[in-house]
Amino acid sequence: MKTAGPGRGTNSVSLRQYNERSLLQRLRRAGEASKADLARWAQLTNTAVGSIVESLEQSRLIESAGRRQEGQRGQPAGLYRINPQGAYGIGVRLDRTSIETVVIDLAGHILARRMHDQVLPQPEQALAIVQQDIAAVLAELSPEQRGRLAGVGLAQPYNLGSWLQQLGLEADFRVWDAVDFGTMLSQAVQLPVFKENDGNAAAIAELVFGVGRQENDFLYVFIGAALGAGAVLGGESLRGSSGNGADLGLMPVPPSALPSAPQLGGQWDILLSRASLNALSRHVRHHGIEVAGNAQLEAVVRAGGPAVAEWLDDCVDAFVPSLRAALAVLDLPAVVIDCDIDGGLIDALIRRSEDGLRAIAPEARQTPRLLRGSFRADAGAIGAASLPMFFNFSPRADVLRGHASPFVPTHHLQELSHA
Amino acid sequence: MKTAGPGRGTNSVSLRQYNERSLLQRLRRAGEASKADLARWAQLTNTAVGSIVESLEQSRLIESAGRRQEGQRGQPAGLYRINPQGAYGIGVRLDRTSIETVVIDLAGHILARRMHDQVLPQPEQALAIVQQDIAAVLAELSPEQRGRLAGVGLAQPYNLGSWLQQLGLEADFRVWDAVDFGTMLSQAVQLPVFKENDGNAAAIAELVFGVGRQENDFLYVFIGAALGAGAVLGGESLRGSSGNGADLGLMPVPPSALPSAPQLGGQWDILLSRASLNALSRHVRHHGIEVAGNAQLEAVVRAGGPAVAEWLDDCVDAFVPSLRAALAVLDLPAVVIDCDIDGGLIDALIRRSEDGLRAIAPEARQTPRLLRGSFRADAGAIGAASLPMFFNFSPRADVLRGHASPFVPTHHLQELSHA
Repeated sequence: MKTAGPGRGTNSVSLRQYNERSLLQRLRRAGEASKADLARWAQLTNTAVGSIVESLEQSRLIESAGRRQEGQRGQPAGLYRINPQGAYGIGVRLDRTSIETVVIDLAGHILARRMHDQVLPQPEQALAIVQQDIAAVLAELSPEQRGRLAGVGLAQPYNLGSWLQQLGLEADFRVWDAVDFGTMLSQAVQLPVFKENDGNAAAIAELVFGVGRQENDFLYVFIGAALGAGAVLGGESLRGSSGNGADLGLMPVPPSALPSAPQLGGQWDILLSRASLNALSRHVRHHGIEVAGNAQLEAVVRAGGPAVAEWLDDCVDAFVPSLRAALAVLDLPAVVIDCDIDGGLIDALIRRSEDGLRAIAPEARQTPRLLRGSFRADAGAIGAASLPMFFNFSPRADVLRGHASPFVPTHHLQELSHA
Repeated sequence: MKTAGPGRGTNSVSLRQYNERSLLQRLRRAGEASKADLARWAQLTNTAVGSIVESLEQSRLIESAGRRQEGQRGQPAGLYRINPQGAYGIGVRLDRTSIETVVIDLAGHILARRMHDQVLPQPEQALAIVQQDIAAVLAELSPEQRGRLAGVGLAQPYNLGSWLQQLGLEADFRVWDAVDFGTMLSQAVQLPVFKENDGNAAAIAELVFGVGRQENDFLYVFIGAALGAGAVLGGESLRGSSGNGADLGLMPVPPSALPSAPQLGGQWDILLSRASLNALSRHVRHHGIEVAGNAQLEAVVRAGGPAVAEWLDDCVDAFVPSLRAALAVLDLPAVVIDCDIDGGLIDALIRRSEDGLRAIAPEARQTPRLLRGSFRADAGAIGAASLPMFFNFSPRADVLRGHASPFVPTHHLQELSHA
C-alpha cells in the first residue's frame, strides 16, 4: 500500500475512480437509488453517472434492484443496489490471546470463520495457522467468488509486546515487535494485505458496515481485553503518523483506586489499565470469583454484584475525562461504544459515560450522542475484513491523489484455496 | 464558504485547480523549481505542468527566478518562484482584550497593521472599528495590489462569552455568542470572509508560512491570554465538526495547586485555567507584582523569581498530560509551541514539556519533536490573514471535491479603500 503524500498532482484516472467509489458509497448508504438520484446527489451529469453505473454493473459491484415510478408519466426508473457478491474480503485478527480468520462479502456478512483461543505463538507458527485458516475459509467459496477477492485485512494491536504489566499478562511477545507480520503474510498468501491496528480496523468496520451508514464523523471505542479506539473524520479513518491514531488506551489517567490494580508508581497511569476487560477480570478474581474466558466474564457481569459495580465506577472515573479530552481534540458529535462482552455492560457504560460527560462538560460545549457499536465480539474480525473493502471501494481523498489501484477480479486464488 | 460534504463526485475543473495549488505549494516549500522539477515531483506530464505553469505565470501568482544549468548541455532550465505580489490577504483578529487588522502578501509579510488594545466592545462598534481599519490598511496598497485581494480572514476565540471565570475576566461578552461577526463583516466590506477560531488560524499560519514548509503533520499550541491550539494532519487543518478541532484549552486537568487560582470545585478543571498568560498574570499579582499588558508581563518573566517559577511548575504539570493525551489521539511527530510573550518563556516551556513528556511516555511511544513557533505575538494576526491564502491557494482535499472557487484578481476594492 502506498503512503499518502499530500500535495501531489492528480489525473483523470484518479478522478474516475473517486467518482465510482462515491457512487458505491452512496448506494451502500441509501440501499438503492436510480441514476437520476445519483446524479443529483453527486452533482455530476447524467452522462457521467450513466457511464459509471454501466461500468460498475459490468464489473458486478452493483446490480439492478427493479424499477420505481418517478413522477406521473414516462418509463419507471431503473434502481441499483450494491451486489453483495461483488467482492469478498478476508479478515485476520491477531490478539494477544486469540487468532481469528473470516471471509465477508460486500454486504459485510461473515461467510466463513476459523477461531483459535490461544496465547499468540511465535510469528512463524502464527503464520502457519493463519495460512491454513485462510485456505479453509476460501474453500467455502466457489472458484468464481475466490476470483473476486479484494485482499486480506490484518488487524492487530500494535506493539504486542508492550503494556503487559497493565494488562496483567506474563507472556513474552517481544519478538512480535521486531517482525512485520503483514509483509510475511502477504508473501505467504500472494495477496495484497491491508494492515491497521485493531481499534482503527473496528472503527472502519463501523464506517463501512455499521453506524457509518448514518454518521460521517464519530469516535469509536472498543472495550476488549485492552481498549481499542479509532476516529472517523469526514468519512476517513484517522490513521495518524505512525498508524496509532485515536489511541485512547494510552491516554494518561490517574492511577486506579481499586485494590486489585497493579501498583505502578507515578502520578499517571494509562487508560487501558482501568477501562478494559483485563481490569474487570482482575478485580473479579480479587473478589475470589474465578473467570476463564469471556463467556464466564459475561455471566459474572449479568449476575451483577459488588466486584462488577466497583470496577465500573473505577472504569468510568478514568474513561469520562479521557473521552472529554479526546472530544476536545477531535470535536466529534458522536461516540460509538462497543465491547467484547455484553450482559448489560454496554448499556451501563453508555449511560454512565453520558452522565459523566454531562457532569464535566465545559461551558459552551455539547455532550455527544453515545451510540452502541454494531458488531460486539465480531468487531475485530469484521474490522480486519473491512480493510480491503475500505481501501478498494471507499471514496478516500488518497484516491484523488493517485494512491490507489483499481479492483480487478482475477482467478489467481483457486490454487491457494486447495493448498 | 461551502461546507465539505465527503463522498460527492468531482470533475476536471476541480482537478486542474488542485494541481495548480499543488504546484504553488511545492514552489512555496522549495523556494524555486524548474518545470522538470515540478513534473517529477507532482508525477504529472511535462505538458500538464507546462500548461499550469503558464497560467500561474499569466495570473502572476508565480514569476521567473532566472535560469539554472541542468546537466552538461542544452539550454539552461527556467526557474519559477512564488510572486509575493501575486495576492494579498487581510487578517482581522478579535480577542477579548484587543482588535488587530493586518494585510499580508503572498510571502506572508505584514505590509500594514492597525491595533487596538481595548476590551472588546459590542459587535456593531467592533464592526465600525474593523471597517475603518480595513480601509486604512488597504489605503497603503496600490490600486493594482487592492485588485489582487484574496479575501478577509477572521480569527477569534469561539464562545467569547465563556470561561471568563477561569480567565479572571469580569466583562460580559455574551452578546458575541449570539452574532455571526463573519457574516456581518462580509456584508459590510463586500469581500469573502474566511473564519476560524484563533488557534486553528494560527496553526494554518504555521502551515502556510512557518514550520509547515518542512512539516506536514504537527500539533500547534499558542499560550496567550487563554490557550489556543490547532492540528495539521497531512497538510490539512483539523477543523472539527463545529470548528473547534484541537481545542486543547478545554481538556480536563486536575485543579491548580496555586493559591492564586480560583476555587471552582469539582474534580476537573480545564487546561486554559492553568496554562495561560491569564493564569500567570493572576499568580504574579498574587505575589504583589502589578502587571498591565504583555510588555510588563514579559519583563517579569525575564527577571525570573518565585512567582514565575511556581506558575511554570503548575502550568507544566497540567500541560504535559494534556499534550500526551492529545498526542495519543492525533499521533503526531511534532509539537509547535508559541506564546504571546517571550523573555525566555518559550524555551523554558519547550524544555520543561519535553522532559515531562519523556517522563510519562507510555511504553512503545516516542516523544515528539518540540519546535518553536514562527510568529510569537503576530501569530493571531498572521493566522487571520493566512486564511484567505490557505483557502484560495492550498491543495486541500475539498478542492478535489468541488468545494472551492478559483481566485480571480479584480478591481472592485478601489472604492472601499477610500471610504
